Amino acid sequence: MARTEIPDIVIGRLPVYLRALARLEQEGHEITSSHELGKRLGISSAQIRKDLSHFGEFGKQGTGYTVATLSTELQRILNVNREWQVALVGVGDLGRALAHYGGFAHRGFRITHLFDSDVAKIGTMIDNLEIQSMTGMVETIQQARLKVAMLATPADAAQEVTNLLVESGVRAILNYAPIVVRVPDGVRIQYIDPVIHLQRMAYYLD
Amino acid sequence: MARTEIPDIVIGRLPVYLRALARLEQEGHEITSSHELGKRLGISSAQIRKDLSHFGEFGKQGTGYTVATLSTELQRILNVNREWQVALVGVGDLGRALAHYGGFAHRGFRITHLFDSDVAKIGTMIDNLEIQSMTGMVETIQQARLKVAMLATPADAAQEVTNLLVESGVRAILNYAPIVVRVPDGVRIQYIDPVIHLQRMAYYLD
Repeated sequence: MARTEIPDIVIGRLPVYLRALARLEQEGHEITSSHELGKRLGISSAQIRKDLSHFGEFGKQGTGYTVATLSTELQRILNVNREWQVALVGVGDLGRALAHYGGFAHRGFRITHLFDSDVAKIGTMIDNLEIQSMTGMVETIQQARLKVAMLATPADAAQEVTNLLVESGVRAILNYAPIVVRVPDGVRIQYIDPVIHLQRMAYYLD
Repeated sequence: MARTEIPDIVIGRLPVYLRALARLEQEGHEITSSHELGKRLGISSAQIRKDLSHFGEFGKQGTGYTVATLSTELQRILNVNREWQVALVGVGDLGRALAHYGGFAHRGFRITHLFDSDVAKIGTMIDNLEIQSMTGMVETIQQARLKVAMLATPADAAQEVTNLLVESGVRAILNYAPIVVRVPDGVRIQYIDPVIHLQRMAYYLD
């Protein structure tokens, strides 16, 4: 099936299911159900079954899902049953925090390249990675065939850097800068926007 | 209407609508439609109309929505037609980046208190805010009546700090630490998890 035939909003829920399954596994559960997953996630069990039905039959009527099997299947569907090398552009406070972030391991991604435009930073190391110059970025990313990048530059540099990343062959960009950037068709972009989460919670405050 | 009668998944989409409306306004649009919003967001127009219908009548059949009016209404519904003071706990690289983050302005939140346990940092300033000791945190937050906090501590401190925040009266926590923390009923928690976004995009890579 073509990758664009399934609504992106459904694809967007699969990582949330996968994370819930990882937690169930950590807690020692071997079997789960759409009902249990739904209760944990605040999503209806019918929605979960419908989402999964796009990709085949994963559970047996009445016995639920095997946590490990469903987890493996979702990893395969999401293309994260491998490790994507990730370029991180912008090594300020945020970039430094991301370079040290402990949440990537075993979830399909590893930061392997750091880029910055600040000559004082270029050539210095973060853990075992050297901060490289933006000047050679396009060539370096092309040679390494990187497809995934995280953008942690100031807002006013975000569009220019995005253009370079697209030119380099990057097709998935996670943007931390608080600004909308344009990408051509065939390139995906997602935003980390803390305010979206804060506003959702503010609804319940009085 | 009780704040819990509307599904949280609907509430979760309202900030996304609000952000899209802000962009439309920036671009000079005065009128929009569920169709246009849906196209921008990858959500069906029927879903948008259904979500908004929980809160009343905002558009006129055939003429769409007034961008500024719908924006104001959503701000009111989400309780962000005011400014919530926010405590930021953990002023490492990430906390420092958040303290400087330009995306909060005019969206309902302002970081007004910084806390850290590192004696070398306590008493130092970030912009015009002094980093305060964790020792007095509960009392300080209680006195300032803060309801919202962001957690940017290392993972192994996250649960302990969460407990203190809950004790302080905080009822909405945005957690950047890559770890699940428990909160009692009546306290909301949301997670910033870059991998969720990366996995969603990886689906489309080959």
